[in-house]
Order: sequence, then structure tokens, then C-alpha cells
Amino acid sequence: MSSDTATGVTAAQGFAAVGIAAGIKPSGNTDLAIVRNLGPEYTAAGVFTRNRVVASPVKWSKKAVADGTLEAVLFNAGNANACNGTQGDQDCAQSVEHLAATLGIAADRIAACSTGLIGELLPMQRLLSGIDQAAPALAASPEAGHDAATAIMTTDTVRKETLVQGDGWVLGGMGKGVGMMAPSLATMLVCLTTDASISQEVAQQALAKAVAVTFNTLDVDGSTSTNDTVLLLANGASGVTPSVEAFEAAVLKACADLANQLQADAEGVTKRVRITVTGTDSDAQALAAARTIGRDNLFKCAMFGSDPNWGRVLAAVGMADAAMDPENISVWFNDQPVCLGSTGAPGARDVDLSGADIDVRVDLGTGGTGEAFVRTTDLSHAYVEINSAYSS
Amino acid sequence: MSSDTATGVTAAQGFAAVGIAAGIKPSGNTDLAIVRNLGPEYTAAGVFTRNRVVASPVKWSKKAVADGTLEAVLFNAGNANACNGTQGDQDCAQSVEHLAATLGIAADRIAACSTGLIGELLPMQRLLSGIDQAAPALAASPEAGHDAATAIMTTDTVRKETLVQGDGWVLGGMGKGVGMMAPSLATMLVCLTTDASISQEVAQQALAKAVAVTFNTLDVDGSTSTNDTVLLLANGASGVTPSVEAFEAAVLKACADLANQLQADAEGVTKRVRITVTGTDSDAQALAAARTIGRDNLFKCAMFGSDPNWGRVLAAVGMADAAMDPENISVWFNDQPVCLGSTGAPGARDVDLSGADIDVRVDLGTGGTGEAFVRTTDLSHAYVEINSAYSS
Repeated sequence: MSSDTATGVTAAQGFAAVGIAAGIKPSGNTDLAIVRNLGPEYTAAGVFTRNRVVASPVKWSKKAVADGTLEAVLFNAGNANACNGTQGDQDCAQSVEHLAATLGIAADRIAACSTGLIGELLPMQRLLSGIDQAAPALAASPEAGHDAATAIMTTDTVRKETLVQGDGWVLGGMGKGVGMMAPSLATMLVCLTTDASISQEVAQQALAKAVAVTFNTLDVDGSTSTNDTVLLLANGASGVTPSVEAFEAAVLKACADLANQLQADAEGVTKRVRITVTGTDSDAQALAAARTIGRDNLFKCAMFGSDPNWGRVLAAVGMADAAMDPENISVWFNDQPVCLGSTGAPGARDVDLSGADIDVRVDLGTGGTGEAFVRTTDLSHAYVEINSAYSS
Repeated sequence: MSSDTATGVTAAQGFAAVGIAAGIKPSGNTDLAIVRNLGPEYTAAGVFTRNRVVASPVKWSKKAVADGTLEAVLFNAGNANACNGTQGDQDCAQSVEHLAATLGIAADRIAACSTGLIGELLPMQRLLSGIDQAAPALAASPEAGHDAATAIMTTDTVRKETLVQGDGWVLGGMGKGVGMMAPSLATMLVCLTTDASISQEVAQQALAKAVAVTFNTLDVDGSTSTNDTVLLLANGASGVTPSVEAFEAAVLKACADLANQLQADAEGVTKRVRITVTGTDSDAQALAAARTIGRDNLFKCAMFGSDPNWGRVLAAVGMADAAMDPENISVWFNDQPVCLGSTGAPGARDVDLSGADIDVRVDLGTGGTGEAFVRTTDLSHAYVEINSAYSS
């Protein structure tokens, strides 16, 4: 991706961004970002982690976006500001209020997103100095958007940005996240920006619908972060109000694009695995079954080994909370039948899974019409390596 | 363990065993075992996998033990005979019937246990020849018991046997299993033998109670095998009928001993982790919370890295189906507080987790009296290595 590509959070008119090094990450890499909506409208929507243990910035941002408006988002990487008690809440408030004073806007119109280690207090002096340094550097250039996308990275190996062209309007965005995906990453953060003019209701519904079938179908390790946040900011700067259908399609496309980028860059991933389940009573049961398979470590290790060990699919799905006929389960790897009627199909052991993308389809044999899919990854040496040495 | 130690399935009077190489394992190692109860009583109890996808030998054994009697158990390693359809059922029946004819007993008084790869048909010629070779070699010696315990190993690195001395009676046993523990291993098989004289009701209740707090609290990777089986055979050869309390205590002790051996030899394990959860509404909720933590790959990787990253405990438990106060969760590693009131405790990052045993205690802060524990292991490079190359 060349540095002048018009993608990311500044692709839409009327958005400025910045990313700088505030000294939060020990590496010295950039770690503080701001996205500012320059108006004229300040519509906002948000979707947050389902984890009951939530970080201070999630608590703050839920309140900030509750009235459907935001003027800015403050991001930091290197510290999740989670499990820091009331001190964490105070630190979050202080940093947002400092940015609010600097920009001359109300603090309750600013959301906060943090990602990094849980249980360490924010280095407030560095954070406040960083805000002082960053705020004047806010710019609407493509580079500024790229800088923001880079500053929110943790163990991400590449920055993640997206762009969807509407008819006279634009939807851009950035994301980060690499582990802990369910629906979410070792904190998944996403910020979408658009110059379309839309109502808060349309924004929230479009975001919720898109998240449900993109980030929420991504399950790398069954872990769900304390900090996951997906925000959408809309300013109407294009003067165009797209149809609800067109807007929802654009949000879905942007979320799907970022979800693909997140899955491809998941910690230690060598395989991208899509698991589709059919033949059960409901879509919800199919999703539960697909998740059960996607979270099974023995299955994930087999995928890492390019091993068409379909028996692990059956062993995993047998524990799922879904209607099934245990004697009539069928499995396909890359569209080749490996198990039909709960029995191995000829040539099953010879199916080639050496490619980076593996398609798994499972029919639970009840004749029911439930269907769902999840996307997951393999379980690799690198995953263990990265995650056994995170905080030390 | 010296070869003449009187432990294992032949430790009790009136039990014979054998373990031979039938050529089922590609390695040529021993892979076929028989345990025979020589009477005078033939009391039996069994506990089986909760997986809905069950292997042919599990279907057979459930029926065989349904009347509370067994005279023999046929074991093979190297092939699970799971997901082989009606052919698998027929192969299981044929092998048991062959053993029955050879021993001159009824086939419905023989249980079958298989462990190994799912979805491959049993090599029937080798299996039947193996039975012909093994049956005449049945012996009541300690060595014969050890041979049987060795023959049922798959990726186990050591054989697992136990012995509990009663007052005038003995309870011995063997087990195998190394992955897929939940409650169970990449097939967990256990066979206990006793010369106590007990009723089927006492046997079944003692076994069910012991399994619930031993094997069922062992959770290596959340996977549950299609083949898990725990059997108890009692022949009254000692002439002693112990009290129900004494017998239940012995079965519990034997199961706990084997469970410890299984945990210690789990695939790729470098840490044995015990997770206790308190402060929630019920024991069932506490168990659900402990399991959620014990299955979290990010937590397990931290344990592998001896990393006191307590934030992962909170992130994991926040998704558990258990009552909790998200602002009042506390965590202890090896009895040292690392998180109090959902906030890091002083010195939390310096807690020493370098030992092989790690004790984790979590209080969910509701003041409720629910309490439970699970035992799990770390997630290591070796786990990935072993499980990415199992069938290939």
C-alpha cells in the first residue's frame, strides 16, 4: 500500500487524523492517535465488547456515544487501561478532558480506545504530553490517516485500512487486532469515517448488522477482549444522503474488508479457515456448532499441519449445543467430501490442505435449514510464542 | 516403577491381563490388551464420554455393562474405531465375539475400548490374530498388568497404574490419555479392578462420584473424545465387603491418582495448573468459570511462559456464564494476590511462576458460596507439534 493511497480514516471529506509516539510502547513506536470529525454533522454509532470485564475507555466511550454524536476519538496502544479500578476510570477521563480542552470541544463528545497490556496504569505524563504534541498536528491528509492506523497497532504486522466509494460519498476506516478474536482481537479496534449524511439510527443499525456478520464471525482463539470497540463517525460533508440499503452495503463491505485483514494478520496465523455448518435446527445452532469446531485446539493444530484429520471435526462438533444426527454427519474440506454419513469418504486422507485458505463445510444431518459460518485460523508455534511472552 | 511392583489391573486377586503387539500401531509397539475377571463375582460399572459422536466400542460397552456385569475387557490402541459407520459397529462386535469364543464366555459380558485415530477401519485380520495370540497368554502376574497398561498407550510417554490397599481387599487399575481431556483425553481409558465384594449399585455410584471430581475436573484442551471410557470390575475374590464409605474413598483415591498421572503426562505439558473459583452463586457457575479460564488459550500461553499476566484471567472469566461483580474480582497466583477488586495488586508482575505447578484462585466478588476447581495445563510448542502431526 503506497503512502498516498486515499484509504483510511481521512479518505472521507472532513476528517483529520494524527499518529505520534508518546512513549507508551516500550519499543518507541508510534502509540497515540486522534481522529477528528470536522463536521458539519457529528453522527456516531458504536459496538462494544460483550465481555463483562470491560476497560475504562469502553465504559467512557459507551456513555460518550450514547447520544449518537462524537467529534473525536482518542486512541492509544501499548496499554489497555483495563482492570485499573477507579484510577483507570479517572485516567481515562483526565486524558479525554485534556484532549477536549486542547481541541476546544466538550469531553462527552470524545470517545476513547485503548489496546495493550491489561492491569498497568496509563503513563499519564507521557499520554498528556503526547496529546499536546498530537492535537496541533491533526491533518486531513492520507498520510495522517495512515499514521493513525499505524499508531494503534500492537502485535499487528501491517496496518489495516479500508475504503468504500459511494455515489458522491466515501466510507473509509482503520482497524487493528490480531489475537483474542471472538468477536474480537487482543483488542480489536475499528474506526470508520464517512462524509455521507445519515441519521444516528441508520448509522447504528448499519454498524450492528455489519459487525454481526463480519467481526462477530471471526474467532481466532475464543477469547474476547476487555477493550473491543467499533466506531462509525459520519459528518455529511459530501452533502449526500445515501439510501439505507446503499449505506448498509458500504458499511458491510468496509467491515468485511477489515475483518479479512484482521484474520490474515492474526497472531501466528499460517492458515485462514472458514467453517460453514448446515443441517441443524436454526442459524443460532449452526453458529454454535461452527464456533465449537473453530475453537477446538486439536482441530486447529490439524489445520496448522495441513492434516485432513476430519475425525477431529466430528469429535469437536459432537460437543456442540446444536441439533445433530450423530450417525449422519458429513464433512467437506475444500469442497471434497471427507466424511459422509459419519463415515470416512474414499480418499479423505489425501485431500490437499497445503494452501493458506481452507474451506470446511459440515452438515449435521438433521435435514434442518439452520446455517452459519465462522472464520478462524490455525494454532501454530508462533501463536504460542507470541502469547507466552506478551507481558514479560 | 519397577516391573514387579504389585500395582495395576492385576494387583487385586482374581484378575488376569495381557498386552501384546498385534500390528495395529505402525510403530510395532504393543497395542492389544485384555483384562479378565476370574470371579467368583462379575460386578461392573462404567462411565462414558458425553460426546454425542461416540465410537463403536463405546456403543458396544454401554450395552455390555448395562446389566452390571462384565467378565472381560478388550482394549486396542492405534485405532479409535470411531466414525466408521455400521462397518465399525460390525468390526467391534466381531472382535468381541472372537474373544468371547476364544475365552468361552458370552460376548455381552465383554466390554471394548479403543483409542487412536478416528475414521480408519480396524485392521480386522491383525486384530483377530492378536486376540488368538493374547488370550492364551492371560496371566495374573504383576508383569501382565504392566504389559496391558503399556499396550493401551498412544502418545502417553509413561504407563499409568494405581493401587489402593483396603482392609483385606485391594483396588488396582490402569489408565491412558494425554490430550482431549474434558473430562477426557485423546481418548481417556481407565480400567479399575478390585477383589472387594460389592453390589453393582455401590460400584456404579462410587465410580460416578469419583469421576465427577477427578477425570471430569481435568481439562487440558476443552476437547472431549469419542471414545472415553472408565470401567470398574469387582470380583469379591477377597471375600470382604467394605463399607460404602471405604469403597468410595478407595475408588476416589485410585481415580485421583490416575488423573494426576494423566495430567502430568498430558501432551506437551510443562505446567500443571489448578484453577479454583469462588464467590459466585453456585458450584455449577464456579465450575463453568473455572473451565472458561482453563480453556483460554491466551491464559494457557501465559502459563507456558511463567508469565503472571493476571489480566488474561479477568479477560477470560468475563465471558463465563457465572454470576460476578466485574468491579470486584480478585486473583491469586500461588497464594499471592495479583488482583484485588479487579485492580492489580502491588508486586503482581513479580510473582514467581517458574515451577511446574501453578495454583490459580479467582474470587468473582459476589459474596456467593459457589466453589469449584479444574485442573489444566499450559499450551506449549510441544502441544502444537504433537497435534499438528497426529494422523500424517
